[in-house]
Amino acid sequence: MPYEIDETHDPKLESWVESANDPATDFPIQNLPLCDFTGTIGDQQDRKLAVRIGEKLFLLDKALEAGLFPSLPSDLDGTFWAGFTGNRDVYSIYELESGVRKELRRRLSELLGTTCDDLRGNPELIDRVLIDAAAADFYWPPSAFDYTDFYASVYHATNVGSMFRPDNPLLPNYKWIPVGYHGRASSVVPSGTPVRRPTGQLSPAEEGGAPGFGPCKMLDYELELGVVVGRGNELGQPIPIGEAEDHILGMCLLNDWSARDMQKWEYVPLGPFLAKNFATTVSPYIVTMEALAPFRSPAMVRPDGDPKPLPHLFDERDQAHGGIDITLEVFLASKQMRDKKMDPIRLSKGTFKDMYWTIAQMLTHHSSNGCNMQPGDLLGSGTISGPTREARGCLLELTWDGDPFANPPKLVPGTERTPIKLPTGEERKFIADGDEVIIRGYCEREGFRRIGFGECRGIIEPAIG
Amino acid sequence: MPYEIDETHDPKLESWVESANDPATDFPIQNLPLCDFTGTIGDQQDRKLAVRIGEKLFLLDKALEAGLFPSLPSDLDGTFWAGFTGNRDVYSIYELESGVRKELRRRLSELLGTTCDDLRGNPELIDRVLIDAAAADFYWPPSAFDYTDFYASVYHATNVGSMFRPDNPLLPNYKWIPVGYHGRASSVVPSGTPVRRPTGQLSPAEEGGAPGFGPCKMLDYELELGVVVGRGNELGQPIPIGEAEDHILGMCLLNDWSARDMQKWEYVPLGPFLAKNFATTVSPYIVTMEALAPFRSPAMVRPDGDPKPLPHLFDERDQAHGGIDITLEVFLASKQMRDKKMDPIRLSKGTFKDMYWTIAQMLTHHSSNGCNMQPGDLLGSGTISGPTREARGCLLELTWDGDPFANPPKLVPGTERTPIKLPTGEERKFIADGDEVIIRGYCEREGFRRIGFGECRGIIEPAIG
Repeated sequence: MPYEIDETHDPKLESWVESANDPATDFPIQNLPLCDFTGTIGDQQDRKLAVRIGEKLFLLDKALEAGLFPSLPSDLDGTFWAGFTGNRDVYSIYELESGVRKELRRRLSELLGTTCDDLRGNPELIDRVLIDAAAADFYWPPSAFDYTDFYASVYHATNVGSMFRPDNPLLPNYKWIPVGYHGRASSVVPSGTPVRRPTGQLSPAEEGGAPGFGPCKMLDYELELGVVVGRGNELGQPIPIGEAEDHILGMCLLNDWSARDMQKWEYVPLGPFLAKNFATTVSPYIVTMEALAPFRSPAMVRPDGDPKPLPHLFDERDQAHGGIDITLEVFLASKQMRDKKMDPIRLSKGTFKDMYWTIAQMLTHHSSNGCNMQPGDLLGSGTISGPTREARGCLLELTWDGDPFANPPKLVPGTERTPIKLPTGEERKFIADGDEVIIRGYCEREGFRRIGFGECRGIIEPAIG
Repeated sequence: MPYEIDETHDPKLESWVESANDPATDFPIQNLPLCDFTGTIGDQQDRKLAVRIGEKLFLLDKALEAGLFPSLPSDLDGTFWAGFTGNRDVYSIYELESGVRKELRRRLSELLGTTCDDLRGNPELIDRVLIDAAAADFYWPPSAFDYTDFYASVYHATNVGSMFRPDNPLLPNYKWIPVGYHGRASSVVPSGTPVRRPTGQLSPAEEGGAPGFGPCKMLDYELELGVVVGRGNELGQPIPIGEAEDHILGMCLLNDWSARDMQKWEYVPLGPFLAKNFATTVSPYIVTMEALAPFRSPAMVRPDGDPKPLPHLFDERDQAHGGIDITLEVFLASKQMRDKKMDPIRLSKGTFKDMYWTIAQMLTHHSSNGCNMQPGDLLGSGTISGPTREARGCLLELTWDGDPFANPPKLVPGTERTPIKLPTGEERKFIADGDEVIIRGYCEREGFRRIGFGECRGIIEPAIG
């Protein structure tokens, strides 16, 4: 279990990579997230796995080659494709057992810290293994094959359910099953990739009418976290809840762009499809479960009357530590705002610890029928909304006036929306062309160094016309 | 457009690979399907792309190396992973433009035919490029990354809809949208892979009750065809309907195993998930669109009153040739039957030309919002059912007594089922442990050589207990 706080979390640790000691950095030596990028290294264009530290990238394959990790298995491979190409002589960092992952982190902390000279004392080696983060041409999204999206915030599910089914917002399975569905892996893109407004069939103006066809008019973001799978499981062999976190490598920010008018028309009976699969943006850094250890919290306390999770989804340690206090903020900047050098405005602020289902429950549910998870698979948490208006994780909820949590519930028809006012005088009910949506996430706790997730950004381009 | 019938379809063509001339083979020289397998070739274990001919596999990379395809681009690569590893100096056979694919087929037909000595006259070369099909240890499913499943048979959708919603079997979007949803790529397995009965949450016995948890009691197959994507499209760039078939490499048989009791409980509001993702079995051969040319038929004629497809899904040539007359049969053999050396019994027989949506419409719909398709992506057609009882493509339909197509419709509650009697005296409403389900598919037309798809087989193993 990666809940253990060890010496790598000591807030007094500093790095000889000076930029890692900047109080404002997301990437101090206590973080050490993984990323996968393409860049010119030496005189070659190459794809690499790296660890981000301050403003630098630490190249894992070069460091392994140089013998900097004598305590790790000698067949460990620091390249991205190892383990995916059928070459099973080597295995990827994605697949490490939790003990080895802890040792990797310990040694990284040592090598990059101020008390060890193994790397610090060797300028030639530093030149080989450390490059500027800005030198990466392209960050790859942390996803290899399959992408699954969950629906684990009861606040989001209740808000959205109230709009579509005022009398019956939560369906009967919600409190028994971490509801999820398969998403599209090919269109998962890293932060900064422009996103084209999708065109498609839009819900008919009146019941029984013909659908429209054209650019989406109700384009939305969804604030989510991504869970990146580490070790997989064999087809037919479920992952028990008590072992689930050992199969999780880490987490990233995720924006599940959503075309609401397409979604409403297409989603019965087989679920969302084109309303989602035009793009999913992720931050390129995988903040490891080891880095998140100090920020664990209990799983959400279920309200009286809610069922206890079935035994295969219940674990005492998961109940005690399954939550994670990650603060999440969403910002928006219109093109006018950027042109006028205005700061983005914050649309919402919430925390991941408000989720109804834990990430261990999601992974265990996913594999409970024997479905095989693979290293690098990506699980989206579902929109992260909290109990307050400020903590609503998408525009569908933010610009809607209902409050299903009021007593008695205050519901208004779903089409009545109060726009958000921007400092330019512009208004938004949904996202306009040229708008940039920015998600930020970070963890703070008294007595620990703040760590961050970097950013998950995307600008909407006009539909093909 | 791959509708053109050329000299490679001449029924008089024979091969010097004698087994290809057996009238019973699925793989005469007029077929030439692609497959991807692992085997010991020479003294090395390797993964290869090959063409099946009779009882042999023709190794594409060895043949390209040997210079047997001087008319093809010199940077063409015959290995499976080219094009997927970021090495864009070579490109894969999956990505060929239709003109080059036609030339590949023409030359294969020439090399393996009786009138050309380039390969036939060189026994040392034959030893290098031709191996026994039985020498392959493992066939890979024809899928690289993403798998999407459609719902394109109006007969299936109406039958199943009648059980769940007797008054409203077809939802309003059905005749406007080729409804589809994302499936799980990691659990797509090749024919012959045993399939474990899934365990999971089962629909509660009464409304509002707690779900059960245990082995699926309503395990079903679904008869489908798989469409394998050839060339992809860039994210944000839809594939126009007139170009869709140029992006399709070929087709295979597909069994979309389905746990009905899990599906019923989990599928709202985001669609099927664990009811499907424990396994999808495919035949390992990709029968190319070029091979299927003689068996094209018009798209299904829509009944009076049905809407015409919206312009982005309508193409005159697709209406004239978008159907494919592939005969499909499903067989079942229980363990008792196999032990007693009894032949499998046939459960159903139908044809793919009865589908409401064409494969071009499915692919165009999928990419209409800019979703990027990749070489090797797999699209399932959805259960292939026809207008008659004999042509129902799953047990959910076959053991159900309703007939929504009768006038007036004859519907009975969905739980009343007439079991299928097996020759051992056993009965089946759904699939039992030890049952083997076998799908076969072939194309026949007066004046042409019969071609087949091979088999898609799977035996159900008991749930983990």
